[in-house]
Amino acid sequence: MTGWLVIAGLGPGDDSLVTPQVTQALAQASDVIGYIPYVRRVADRPGLTRHETDNREEISRARHALALAAQGHRVVVVSSGDPGVFAMAAAIFEAVEDGPQEWRRLDIQVLPGVTAMLAAAARIGAPLGHDFCAINLSDNMKPWDLITRRLRLAAEADFAMALYNPRSNARPARFADALTVLRQVCAPARPLIFARAVSTPDENIHVAALSDATPEMADMRTVVLVGSSATRVIQRDGTPYVYTPRSVPE
Amino acid sequence: MTGWLVIAGLGPGDDSLVTPQVTQALAQASDVIGYIPYVRRVADRPGLTRHETDNREEISRARHALALAAQGHRVVVVSSGDPGVFAMAAAIFEAVEDGPQEWRRLDIQVLPGVTAMLAAAARIGAPLGHDFCAINLSDNMKPWDLITRRLRLAAEADFAMALYNPRSNARPARFADALTVLRQVCAPARPLIFARAVSTPDENIHVAALSDATPEMADMRTVVLVGSSATRVIQRDGTPYVYTPRSVPE
Repeated sequence: MTGWLVIAGLGPGDDSLVTPQVTQALAQASDVIGYIPYVRRVADRPGLTRHETDNREEISRARHALALAAQGHRVVVVSSGDPGVFAMAAAIFEAVEDGPQEWRRLDIQVLPGVTAMLAAAARIGAPLGHDFCAINLSDNMKPWDLITRRLRLAAEADFAMALYNPRSNARPARFADALTVLRQVCAPARPLIFARAVSTPDENIHVAALSDATPEMADMRTVVLVGSSATRVIQRDGTPYVYTPRSVPE
Repeated sequence: MTGWLVIAGLGPGDDSLVTPQVTQALAQASDVIGYIPYVRRVADRPGLTRHETDNREEISRARHALALAAQGHRVVVVSSGDPGVFAMAAAIFEAVEDGPQEWRRLDIQVLPGVTAMLAAAARIGAPLGHDFCAINLSDNMKPWDLITRRLRLAAEADFAMALYNPRSNARPARFADALTVLRQVCAPARPLIFARAVSTPDENIHVAALSDATPEMADMRTVVLVGSSATRVIQRDGTPYVYTPRSVPE
């Protein structure tokens, strides 16, 4: 039996945002591996083994998945959102590079998904409708100085921004530091969108000017979108629309 | 009868990458509007009017869609990829802001999709696995000086990059200029991925070092991914894997 490994994006939460390609891979899998809440999104069935792992174990999870595929299993590693955006795909290829040569001959496919920033943007309008960047604010994996340098250069480049993992219990002050960097470069009226748990029953979306933004507006389940200098807010009854025009005048 | 307007992303080309949410909206629509090749991806059926428009007519297309929804039609505006990334969602909200007040009370939903850069990244590994940016190289809508300034700052910030619309017949020299900017900041070995028509029968993916990249490697159907300084190439039989590690050492 020939094994394979798929790294699949489950999207931000709602099943109507899972691509048919991912659904088909899950139907053919012998093993599903991932962080506990993502594995639990996959329905149990006869012939399927579900491996639930903790959040901080990406590399051991990746090696386990590759070893199973090398043994002939049909393995799906599940990520939320898109597996290539701050998720499991990079961990798999790190493990491939450091692993035995035979892992380079495995059948490995990454199946893309709807990443959190695009789901969040869709719920408020089109804030990422022009050039933008995505920055992971977690300093578990990189120096905080690099993060603030990227934030500053991104603001100087006038990108709209998506900030992933803005805040965690382990580092509550970091997002306040990020807001300070933004305030040094951007005007006080710059719109920020705090999009929490998009497409789930806990969804909450809130728009605030940079001058009014506070660290408590974000938590572990929030993605923060920052407009560019051109981003517009359309007032109406209820939550406003926020969009960034496609064009920049000469 | 109450009308509504959906702006839907059809993904990069293959139907297995269209979300069930989008498929459901199309099944309920009375009118589908968009650029000719995207409208033709939607099967004809009784009760559905398909409006095919030319590529350069985004704002008139947006106004037409809004006017139909205001008259009670169930309208889906189709984009390729994700409608919020260099596509129709921003045009719709530009038209809403400039249009009659009643358009602000319409039922408007943006349905996200798999954008080209994420589909391309998935086919080669995980080149966008760390902080990254997306830049539209078309200077139809913005000054070329702004584009080169963003490219330079993005390279200084050491983002991986996705370059949309790298080259067109109307401006064949621009992508050569972009490569020149990248060469001023990035090392010659920096990997570039030329991903053409991902997930279609015309798909072609090619990896080249920055020193070997030529403008002819890109065309109108290509998205170009540029690695960061940390991006790795894993050699193997056939096309290599390219990924950007999740972590940056202190």
